[in-house]
Amino acid sequence: MEETNSNWEKFQKKVHVIIYGTNTFAGKLFDLILLGLILLSVVLVMLESVKELDNKYHDLLYYSEWIITVFFTIEYILRIISIKKPLKYIFSFYGIIDLISILPMYLSFFFPRTKILSIVRALRLLRLFRILNLAHFTGQASNLKLALKASQSKIIVFIYFVLVISILLGALMFVIEGPKSGFTSIPRSIYWCIVTLTTVGYGDIAPVTTIGQIIATLVMILGYGIIAVPTGIVSAEFANKARNSNPKNPCSSCGTEDHRDNAKFCYHCGNTLTDV
Amino acid sequence: MEETNSNWEKFQKKVHVIIYGTNTFAGKLFDLILLGLILLSVVLVMLESVKELDNKYHDLLYYSEWIITVFFTIEYILRIISIKKPLKYIFSFYGIIDLISILPMYLSFFFPRTKILSIVRALRLLRLFRILNLAHFTGQASNLKLALKASQSKIIVFIYFVLVISILLGALMFVIEGPKSGFTSIPRSIYWCIVTLTTVGYGDIAPVTTIGQIIATLVMILGYGIIAVPTGIVSAEFANKARNSNPKNPCSSCGTEDHRDNAKFCYHCGNTLTDV
Amino acid sequence: MEETNSNWEKFQKKVHVIIYGTNTFAGKLFDLILLGLILLSVVLVMLESVKELDNKYHDLLYYSEWIITVFFTIEYILRIISIKKPLKYIFSFYGIIDLISILPMYLSFFFPRTKILSIVRALRLLRLFRILNLAHFTGQASNLKLALKASQSKIIVFIYFVLVISILLGALMFVIEGPKSGFTSIPRSIYWCIVTLTTVGYGDIAPVTTIGQIIATLVMILGYGIIAVPTGIVSAEFANKARNSNPKNPCSSCGTEDHRDNAKFCYHCGNTLTDV
Amino acid sequence: MEETNSNWEKFQKKVHVIIYGTNTFAGKLFDLILLGLILLSVVLVMLESVKELDNKYHDLLYYSEWIITVFFTIEYILRIISIKKPLKYIFSFYGIIDLISILPMYLSFFFPRTKILSIVRALRLLRLFRILNLAHFTGQASNLKLALKASQSKIIVFIYFVLVISILLGALMFVIEGPKSGFTSIPRSIYWCIVTLTTVGYGDIAPVTTIGQIIATLVMILGYGIIAVPTGIVSAEFANKARNSNPKNPCSSCGTEDHRDNAKFCYHCGNTLTDV
Repeated sequence: MEETNSNWEKFQKKVHVIIYGTNTFAGKLFDLILLGLILLSVVLVMLESVKELDNKYHDLLYYSEWIITVFFTIEYILRIISIKKPLKYIFSFYGIIDLISILPMYLSFFFPRTKILSIVRALRLLRLFRILNLAHFTGQASNLKLALKASQSKIIVFIYFVLVISILLGALMFVIEGPKSGFTSIPRSIYWCIVTLTTVGYGDIAPVTTIGQIIATLVMILGYGIIAVPTGIVSAEFANKARNSNPKNPCSSCGTEDHRDNAKFCYHCGNTLTDV
Repeated sequence: MEETNSNWEKFQKKVHVIIYGTNTFAGKLFDLILLGLILLSVVLVMLESVKELDNKYHDLLYYSEWIITVFFTIEYILRIISIKKPLKYIFSFYGIIDLISILPMYLSFFFPRTKILSIVRALRLLRLFRILNLAHFTGQASNLKLALKASQSKIIVFIYFVLVISILLGALMFVIEGPKSGFTSIPRSIYWCIVTLTTVGYGDIAPVTTIGQIIATLVMILGYGIIAVPTGIVSAEFANKARNSNPKNPCSSCGTEDHRDNAKFCYHCGNTLTDV
Repeated sequence: MEETNSNWEKFQKKVHVIIYGTNTFAGKLFDLILLGLILLSVVLVMLESVKELDNKYHDLLYYSEWIITVFFTIEYILRIISIKKPLKYIFSFYGIIDLISILPMYLSFFFPRTKILSIVRALRLLRLFRILNLAHFTGQASNLKLALKASQSKIIVFIYFVLVISILLGALMFVIEGPKSGFTSIPRSIYWCIVTLTTVGYGDIAPVTTIGQIIATLVMILGYGIIAVPTGIVSAEFANKARNSNPKNPCSSCGTEDHRDNAKFCYHCGNTLTDV
Repeated sequence: MEETNSNWEKFQKKVHVIIYGTNTFAGKLFDLILLGLILLSVVLVMLESVKELDNKYHDLLYYSEWIITVFFTIEYILRIISIKKPLKYIFSFYGIIDLISILPMYLSFFFPRTKILSIVRALRLLRLFRILNLAHFTGQASNLKLALKASQSKIIVFIYFVLVISILLGALMFVIEGPKSGFTSIPRSIYWCIVTLTTVGYGDIAPVTTIGQIIATLVMILGYGIIAVPTGIVSAEFANKARNSNPKNPCSSCGTEDHRDNAKFCYHCGNTLTDV
């Protein structure tokens, strides 16, 4: 009995190394195959949505997707049984995505239209840099995340103001332009206002009257001006990070901070710097 | 008589705490209900503008709006009688908005079309962060305000130049393209020029002749280049603020704030600064 | 004879004070009237281009323009005779604009279509801030100019690269999409490429084939990415200026620079700072 | 025999000075003529693609191109024989471009459609600043290159995220809007998503349903917000470079450059720095 247990544990360990590890050859190979399959599966779902291709290669696409789904299901089960705290994985961000990636195919037996949801697998691609063990890129990704998080509340306040302004300007344009120019309701006018403020400008709704065009001009200049705000916020955040990310080790002799990354001597008093 | 007076004062105080205060449970509850009603009322005005919904639920929308308006009217009166200096409130920014929020419904008895003006209530939403007592967000909002104010005159000069350039380029395109391509008048050409400079690009008016397209190309590259200007201004402003606002330690002798990161002495009175 | 001369000189001086000066009441009044007339004249030229208005008020518009032109002509002559070095004014930037502002009307006797050129008067509006004696805004305007000049060569290099890239991508799209989708020639494809790169996106020419749309996607992401370059250049320039515009007066005791604008004491050693 | 060799070497040297050199008069003249011919040749290929012009001036355009091609061929051969390590040139970036610039014309004997590939010559224009010996601009160009290279990995991570998000939002819009509004397949929906995110907004595909427009609005605000990220990255990079590149005074002891503005001691060897 003990031996079985030990065998099981050995198997568990081996699987863990292959699936979660990235240092061994087997682990790397597994990660690469997995990445290829995720990419393939995302492409398959895309192609299936193209009518002509679906008509021509329906069976090929259909069976390929099932094969991939079965592989992903086995991988999901192996991930659960090879880890010590399976619940932690199951309810982690990527654990949930891994589950959602396989569910839609099984659900498609009962509700055929849900199949398209398996596109959620694309989210698994977010692990790319970690899977490829590109420490540099993973670092940059978390840098981006931090900078965005730091400017998050500023950006929320900004978007809130933009929305309130859009409601008012949208209602104004609804009154001025009216249904004839495509401003059929206030929500649609607000949609137009955001299309214009963000400088997207589809042109599906565009002002026709002179007063409408004057106000549209103001909205555009406003949008052109306030695009500076989120950019300014994030720029300042990045600049700030760049400045502060140098080690701040103060000089032990004169206390000056802000030395260069690779400084060996204090730029102010010439004293030798000790690493922190 | 005195007792009545005292009762009235008590009532005034109680109402003041509920309406203006945000620390008591009643005050918080009132703020949340008010916020919900403002939001609901804005959504109602929007929905009413959608023909199909208005036809179907006209009565429901109509009476809901009246109930909300009556509530807002009572709130407005209570705000006036519960404050010590009612005139200061009445002529304050939010006092005027509160009044404009209720007037259109009453005016709609005489002028039905004015009803839509009650969308102005959306402006009351600007108090969101203060109402929810989110000090962090209120701070960010006033930060944004300050940064914009600091770069205000630079931006005014910039927009003025853009307008003068647009007039010249608009007239030029009017001469080159003419009414056939939609450039029916100089004001319309200026409208096109701003649509292009701000990179909105509806496509409702677009150059057709070769020379027109060459000039349009120049306008685009110009617009692409000068979008950098407001962004640069605001970025520099934010970066500046970020740099200067870090350690706010006030001087213990003269109270001056805003010292440099590594300042050891107050730049105003020369007193030694102590770290916070 | 001498008296006449002296009278003439007195007249010259008086006119000079009114036209060029901005400190006396008469000078200010003249500047304001001039500004109003320039604005009015620009608006007149615009309105005349609107067919309906021109048909209705042709005579009114026509004679108003003539009156303004005569006024501008008198002003131009007075400017020349009241200045000591008339040639310097005549060949200065604004001198040439002042001349071009009046010429088109007189030329319109012979070539009626040239009349529209009098829109060049809009350039006279550029003197707004100097005319209104708004020193703060004039300062900002010259600040903007300096920052743009400093980043000029960087921006020229950038635009040059963008043009070379646009030629190549334009030719590529011409081969891929062909005349059916509106890519009728390489110049037109280049036009499309710049419309897309600058994120204007009229939609008058848009890719239809799958490969064309994939390349268009790449162009967009490229454009989205490289818009960062001019913005980054100008931002850095502004930030640089903001940092360096503080007087750099070094402390006479410890030599630290980079003090605050209004600093009286060195932030590093507490020594009293002397103004530069 | 030796004399011939020496003659050949003399000829080689002379050609080298003219073709590769930029200091002698002959070298400068050659560069200017070459630049003019490249420009002319690019314009010719463009004009040939315009149907009307090609019909009218077919022979002129055709023979001009052949003359230029022959000139470029001779130049290519001279470049190879006048250099000491011809292979290094042949396989360098510009060597390959020089070859590709002439090949398409010769190939057009067998495959007429390849002729258009000679537009690749436009890439030779990238040498403009070096050819004109504009050291300042060449420096700016390499500055731009460095700043972009430094922010390269951040931008790759950013674009990768944008693509993953676009796949998900594209699939979502495909489900919501469906083929009726032009969202005929997931790849097309992704195309729409990128058109919207990058604020290009052609309008060839635009949401029609209310839910679709709400999601489109979110996509726009997202795009409006995240355009700040590449801009912020590049701005910070430029600002960083600007800050660090100012006083380049190299240390007299160890030669390290890039000291801080107010550094008194070399951060690398601790030696006292002398002002420049």
